[in-house]
Amino acid sequence: MSAQYTLGLDYGTNSVRTLIVNTRNGSEVATAVWGYAHGDAGVILGRDPNLARQHPADYMQGAEVTIRKALAQAKRHVRGFKPDQVIGIGVDTTGSTPLPVDAQGTPLALNRRFARNPAAMAWLWKDHTGVAEAAEITALAARIRPHYLAKCGGTYSSEWFFSKILHCLRTAPDVADAAHTWVECADWIPAMLTGTEAPERLTVGVCAAGHKAMYNDEWGGYPDAEFLGQLHPKLGALRARLRPKACAIDRSVGGLTMEWAARTGLPAGIPVAVGAFDAHLGAVGSGIAPGALVKIIGTSTCDMMVVPAGQPLADVPGLCGIVRGSILPGYFGLEAGQSAVGDIFNWFVNYLQPGGPRRGSHEALTAAAARLQPGESGLLALDWNNGNRTILVDQRLTGLLLGQTLYTTPPEIYRALIEATAFGALTIINRFEEYGVKVQQVINCGGIAEKNPLVMQLYADVTGRPMKVSRSAQTCALGSAIAGAFVAGAFPDYASAQQAMTGLKPKVYTPKPAHHEVYRELYALYRQLHDAFGTAAWRGNLHGVMKDLLRIRARARR
Amino acid sequence: MSAQYTLGLDYGTNSVRTLIVNTRNGSEVATAVWGYAHGDAGVILGRDPNLARQHPADYMQGAEVTIRKALAQAKRHVRGFKPDQVIGIGVDTTGSTPLPVDAQGTPLALNRRFARNPAAMAWLWKDHTGVAEAAEITALAARIRPHYLAKCGGTYSSEWFFSKILHCLRTAPDVADAAHTWVECADWIPAMLTGTEAPERLTVGVCAAGHKAMYNDEWGGYPDAEFLGQLHPKLGALRARLRPKACAIDRSVGGLTMEWAARTGLPAGIPVAVGAFDAHLGAVGSGIAPGALVKIIGTSTCDMMVVPAGQPLADVPGLCGIVRGSILPGYFGLEAGQSAVGDIFNWFVNYLQPGGPRRGSHEALTAAAARLQPGESGLLALDWNNGNRTILVDQRLTGLLLGQTLYTTPPEIYRALIEATAFGALTIINRFEEYGVKVQQVINCGGIAEKNPLVMQLYADVTGRPMKVSRSAQTCALGSAIAGAFVAGAFPDYASAQQAMTGLKPKVYTPKPAHHEVYRELYALYRQLHDAFGTAAWRGNLHGVMKDLLRIRARARR
Repeated sequence: MSAQYTLGLDYGTNSVRTLIVNTRNGSEVATAVWGYAHGDAGVILGRDPNLARQHPADYMQGAEVTIRKALAQAKRHVRGFKPDQVIGIGVDTTGSTPLPVDAQGTPLALNRRFARNPAAMAWLWKDHTGVAEAAEITALAARIRPHYLAKCGGTYSSEWFFSKILHCLRTAPDVADAAHTWVECADWIPAMLTGTEAPERLTVGVCAAGHKAMYNDEWGGYPDAEFLGQLHPKLGALRARLRPKACAIDRSVGGLTMEWAARTGLPAGIPVAVGAFDAHLGAVGSGIAPGALVKIIGTSTCDMMVVPAGQPLADVPGLCGIVRGSILPGYFGLEAGQSAVGDIFNWFVNYLQPGGPRRGSHEALTAAAARLQPGESGLLALDWNNGNRTILVDQRLTGLLLGQTLYTTPPEIYRALIEATAFGALTIINRFEEYGVKVQQVINCGGIAEKNPLVMQLYADVTGRPMKVSRSAQTCALGSAIAGAFVAGAFPDYASAQQAMTGLKPKVYTPKPAHHEVYRELYALYRQLHDAFGTAAWRGNLHGVMKDLLRIRARARR
Repeated sequence: MSAQYTLGLDYGTNSVRTLIVNTRNGSEVATAVWGYAHGDAGVILGRDPNLARQHPADYMQGAEVTIRKALAQAKRHVRGFKPDQVIGIGVDTTGSTPLPVDAQGTPLALNRRFARNPAAMAWLWKDHTGVAEAAEITALAARIRPHYLAKCGGTYSSEWFFSKILHCLRTAPDVADAAHTWVECADWIPAMLTGTEAPERLTVGVCAAGHKAMYNDEWGGYPDAEFLGQLHPKLGALRARLRPKACAIDRSVGGLTMEWAARTGLPAGIPVAVGAFDAHLGAVGSGIAPGALVKIIGTSTCDMMVVPAGQPLADVPGLCGIVRGSILPGYFGLEAGQSAVGDIFNWFVNYLQPGGPRRGSHEALTAAAARLQPGESGLLALDWNNGNRTILVDQRLTGLLLGQTLYTTPPEIYRALIEATAFGALTIINRFEEYGVKVQQVINCGGIAEKNPLVMQLYADVTGRPMKVSRSAQTCALGSAIAGAFVAGAFPDYASAQQAMTGLKPKVYTPKPAHHEVYRELYALYRQLHDAFGTAAWRGNLHGVMKDLLRIRARARR
């Protein structure tokens, strides 16, 4: 039997990637990236620093350009490769990134009337214009629908679906009135490729709906019209035009249209899987399974776990979401995360620019930080420069650095910042386990896991657990490709698909026991600061923190 | 009547300065500086990072070189100037900087047997080798002589006289045994110039004895032999060789010897005043008087006040010392201070080197920081990178920076560090006033007060008080010169001497009311952190601190 291939489309914040993968062994035979044409590296900004939009024309052009390029690359590099060996397509995107569409499902931004109106474009995940509306939604739900909040960590975010729609209703009523309904980017791309954009034919994924739009089969899907109507009458009216049922990624939304086959060079009719978010399909591409925590480490982290749907599962406080089928079909998908990880290191390097041009790069700081012993700097930091997603669910927390003397150096601070993100990671692991979700292994993926062995080693030393790294450098696109292969029928179940197509790197970072002992002490101090600044309940005294750090420092320097 | 001149000798950490001043109007007609020849910029270091010594040969050469140079300069620049118009000499030094001397009063370091032995040199103020001994002295005093501690803020420091002698007894018994007695640098220089070094002829100043050696007329001078003997029998035996009575700076210790007249070109026989510490004579040179707080702002600060000796005065907790006559004769001298001010800014610029070579200088950071509004960075810092001298008296506290986001810039941090030192300054002012010592005006002097208008403006805005700046850029040497003029009989009292020879710059920094309002809020937050990390008594919650900063930031940016 000749080889079969599957294609993953990965829509990021600044660019889109196509990955072509051999279904038999996960071998990645071609990849192509295209940076979006509109705005500032693909992001349309405004005078309001909270505004961040994308233009849907970029989504269409990006699919065409990258699929063509990837197919050409595969032809060049794989003997006998033919495009009709591609059997399916999967799609992942950022989110929540909703677009207003008309009654035909066409994005309003593609209508000349709204071509330059940011409100008619895709409201990118990191658009925070709806802060006030998010607070309003949280307050109303807490009052009349507390169960809505229990599955999303207790707080509805400004990054999410209804906050954005409500903000549009309030601030751009012309656009809101012209919108027949709103569609998540993760749903709109598969619909575009399969000609199923029409709102009555649209398939929505449970990943976006469940994590960002309070969708849950237990209460009949999306929030009810009465609840939405109390926020805004037109939001209540929109409820009837939202789809009744959301699907997991094991469903096909349809076959690739003739038009898109012609535009890309792929065979017409091949199935396109239901779309999902990048982190969720990244977890699939990293081989997520019960007991495995997949950490997708980039500018921020997503920390993903799955629990079999039949198994009892508590509402874990502080998680970003607990959604059945959002990662793997038949499993609850649990999403946690840290609001900033790589972004904190980037802040230190790019904004503070410490140590002059030669000694201030990530590479130089990492090399110098690696020569330090745990505790020897006397420093302790909180990883809250962009707030705290899990477990405090509070975007309005900020960073903290403690223990500076007159001799504190940039590598010492850099290491303290890495350690702070490791302490944050441990806090998430502990939270999972406190609520009965046992973490038996940790699999890391993403740029930092790939490129910075010090970060991985410190995560192992701080958590006291081995750190594994996903084999693929493109786990999100690989997860999408797996979804495409599955809906094409290449595998009887997801476990077989992951077994065949995912893997780990041989290098495993194992904790150094002596270092772990020091970090146990430092974590206790971190936790004091975490609780003192992060929770209203804590009442205590921090008088010992600085002295304890000096004691640990003296011992480390002995 | 032809002009009269007086000469101030100012012994610093790295160099010695001679200043020649016109007694009629304080005009500074000549100045000369000489960097010490020994060690690293005058400081002999060791493998132990706590060790810091000076070689007394530098003291002798420094007097000769700088006096000669200053006299030559005066001759060049002042028509008709003659060295015999110099009527007196005053001396200020660092401290506590004790030297072991033999039975003739000659420093052991000048004896060939000990020439290279650091224990035989001057134990510079910042030598911290006696940390353990300081703790021992504090503990013993707390147990059997609590009144000794009441006048020095509750803690005996490793920087002080007996900590150093006790450490020498323990670690260099050959030197300790060879030492007939120990003499403060501030006492040894005047003795050297007047040939009164012999221990039985030596005059000791009450400034050094009172602030650093627990001398107090109320309990009969130095600590009693029983107390010292419990620390070490040889320390107890030393008590009998310490002078019975310490004097203020209105006393002459003798006349300049023929030998020193020949070495320097000064007239023989002119009186040399009792020596004192640089900060204390700096306060005199800044025009200190009841109600005036003189802040000597350099790498650290000294905050000096005087209270008429007849007036009731509480033991102010957290002060470095309350000593009758240590600043002005007939007044209690009160010394407080911050362990680091300029040193914190220097740490940021020299150790972190933020913002690259062009944007990371003090000048560039100051200019950028000056464009920010109070509160707009959302940052708050503690000024404890070198511990906290007043009011917490705890060298083992460390720095803290809070409120960082992903966009925090070096100028924002630089400003937060300046503000932190201003909050520390306000805490000292408040402490004085809480104990009935009213601060009616604040006079600043030292390099930072001279050169950085932003620091002065922020101090005014934070404290809500006008900041005045001393006219002289050399207030310590000027204060010494005033002491020299006084013992030469040029003035009937100190007030007249200060009236004639000191003054203020015309520029006064006045608080901006709107900024002061913001800083009142920020200070309340600073005080929460100060008490939470600095005191064992505080029990509370810091959950609001980050949010309050964000609220203040949002308002500042509106």
